[in-house]
Amino acid sequence: MSKLLAELNPSPRILMGPGPSDVHPRVLRAMATPLLGHLDPEFLGIMNETQALLRWVFQTQNTLTFAVSGTGSAGMETCVVNLIEPGDRMVVCVHGVFGQRMVDVAQRAGAEVTVLERSWGDVFPLEMIRETLRKVRPKVLGIVHAETSTGACQPMEGLGELCHEYDTLLLVDTVTSLAGIPVEVDRWQADAVYSGTQKCLSAPPGLAPVTFSPRAVEVIHHRKTKVQSWYLDVTMVERYWGQERFYHHTAPITMIYALREALRLVQEEGLEARFARHRLHHSALRAGLAALGIRYAAVEGHQLPQLNAVWIPPGADDLATRRMLLERFGIEIGGGLGDFKGKVWRIGLMGYSCRANNVLLFLAALEQCLLAQGVRIPEGAAVAAANQVYREHGASQAVR
Amino acid sequence: MSKLLAELNPSPRILMGPGPSDVHPRVLRAMATPLLGHLDPEFLGIMNETQALLRWVFQTQNTLTFAVSGTGSAGMETCVVNLIEPGDRMVVCVHGVFGQRMVDVAQRAGAEVTVLERSWGDVFPLEMIRETLRKVRPKVLGIVHAETSTGACQPMEGLGELCHEYDTLLLVDTVTSLAGIPVEVDRWQADAVYSGTQKCLSAPPGLAPVTFSPRAVEVIHHRKTKVQSWYLDVTMVERYWGQERFYHHTAPITMIYALREALRLVQEEGLEARFARHRLHHSALRAGLAALGIRYAAVEGHQLPQLNAVWIPPGADDLATRRMLLERFGIEIGGGLGDFKGKVWRIGLMGYSCRANNVLLFLAALEQCLLAQGVRIPEGAAVAAANQVYREHGASQAVR
Repeated sequence: MSKLLAELNPSPRILMGPGPSDVHPRVLRAMATPLLGHLDPEFLGIMNETQALLRWVFQTQNTLTFAVSGTGSAGMETCVVNLIEPGDRMVVCVHGVFGQRMVDVAQRAGAEVTVLERSWGDVFPLEMIRETLRKVRPKVLGIVHAETSTGACQPMEGLGELCHEYDTLLLVDTVTSLAGIPVEVDRWQADAVYSGTQKCLSAPPGLAPVTFSPRAVEVIHHRKTKVQSWYLDVTMVERYWGQERFYHHTAPITMIYALREALRLVQEEGLEARFARHRLHHSALRAGLAALGIRYAAVEGHQLPQLNAVWIPPGADDLATRRMLLERFGIEIGGGLGDFKGKVWRIGLMGYSCRANNVLLFLAALEQCLLAQGVRIPEGAAVAAANQVYREHGASQAVR
Repeated sequence: MSKLLAELNPSPRILMGPGPSDVHPRVLRAMATPLLGHLDPEFLGIMNETQALLRWVFQTQNTLTFAVSGTGSAGMETCVVNLIEPGDRMVVCVHGVFGQRMVDVAQRAGAEVTVLERSWGDVFPLEMIRETLRKVRPKVLGIVHAETSTGACQPMEGLGELCHEYDTLLLVDTVTSLAGIPVEVDRWQADAVYSGTQKCLSAPPGLAPVTFSPRAVEVIHHRKTKVQSWYLDVTMVERYWGQERFYHHTAPITMIYALREALRLVQEEGLEARFARHRLHHSALRAGLAALGIRYAAVEGHQLPQLNAVWIPPGADDLATRRMLLERFGIEIGGGLGDFKGKVWRIGLMGYSCRANNVLLFLAALEQCLLAQGVRIPEGAAVAAANQVYREHGASQAVR
């Protein structure tokens, strides 16, 4: 390496894809804070505060609530490998990429997996799940609350009770839902829940908030085999995040600073206000897209406000449009994954990215991109429709 | 959570423990940079640059060189679970905590582990390893280059050749050595090597640089079973860090920014100058400690310059001394782990923490702490001895 590398100087972006979302300036600033040691009494205090806020945002009293030192997928793996022992039966509900991923993770952990499938964009009716639980009697049922690949929101009502009827633990993926729409771990009676920091929490990727119910902890403490992953073994991690403060691995200190600050912002806004903000800007975006004739990929009534997966309109080129949005306007949106590759766009309105400015600019930019490709759309209609929603809503739209 | 959390406001620290080390202001600033998406063409360029610098700092041409999205222990687990299939034989050299940890990780991966032991603080002679390889014929030999729990530096000369004589892959832990003392992956003929960011690279904890030789990659590509960890499976991760750029998990973008900037600082300083700096300040610290009658825990001739593990002097209380250093001076040093708990202190001089200012202040502060406890030491002798080293060295000691 003879040539010295230039200074880091990335172009400014507006992150409206499936995550990461834009990070609030206060969170960025928190990361420039000089480090404490990972066993410093002050850092242990910061860990306690972060855990308390995580419990609140998860709406749970679970003691074993902390941030896994990895991204959302490490959170998934943590939940699976701690609950599953080789030969255990697990049912995984698959209606998108992240359900598929859970199947793979569970099989690698030695689970006998039964896959319950549903069309992409659809959700699972309770009765369909009951049927399978009755037949399979699994140790664990895994389901994705907010499917990032389809924009579908799985209803959680009654699912925990149903699982417990069959002595099954309920494992829930809330990577894209936490802090964007209600996640109520205790009311849901969920037993293991994981999330990520780079979606509606609007911190950078790098940590996976997780929480385990007392029922799950009981199961983990009575395992016959060691957890296959040393790094993700919560029986050891809980001694570091718990009272003992026993060294396990070095916590990613700066990322914890970021998460704490991101959670503080959620706390200052309030959960209800935050959910309402996500709904409002979703309505405006949705009205704008409807004015262009663009339709949602997820079934009606189960569409996530924070992740708008829509069919690419006829005449528009997937890559060309996304490249134009990125290069001309600095706007990132996501393409489709798996079955939806080349067919859908995923427009994120998550956390700090979920703002009127972004909705209006995106609709204006999309209009330009579509017109440039000769797609026939009513000029000005998208922005007008969005503005109509904001006007009806009345309240001034503070940029948060 | 009715009470709003206060602003993040940690006390200033001088990190002279076993890691994390102090993070250079330029690295802190890099982390305040707004995020690119993890599939943004500009971010992919930043990943390429980071990989090129990692190859250089590892002194390797290995294509499969990247940063695992977890801390150093995740790097250990990545190397083990990708090389090992259930039933494979592995020899692990244990002369401290991190060798022990590798045994645990390997057993969880299904390896038949043979433990080769040596007293804590000692190192392994080549002939002892040859004997074991001849008997066991393992698939993998695991060894720690810089044992963070004892401060011992394992000589690597001839070890790669020896392993390959027996068709064994050489796995090396360089968590505490990389960028502090020479790590020469290709010259060593090492096959899988991992490190951490929070030691001599002086970035925050959160990433684990790893590199795999073509020989190791060949073995991984011919596995009969899937890697047990989805998150750490390099056959998938290499498609994201490689040409394809196939989405696996969301990279911890901000941590990559930090690592890139930390590597740039190494590049600007130069490896040789960096190693010389670590040796110089180690000599000064060592002279100061010797003046107080404080001795090293690792055997003579194999003591790491960047991690000074020393016996706690008679009359000094472990916890009281460390608390006093932290509370009065903001200085963090490490206590002993495992067998060395309560017996040794671990004084780190890593990366940005490795500076004359820190050596002199630490010796002055330690003197005050020892005198306060009634330990009989010659007043002023430690600082005088360190200054003598700096004077003899002649060159002005730039603060880096």
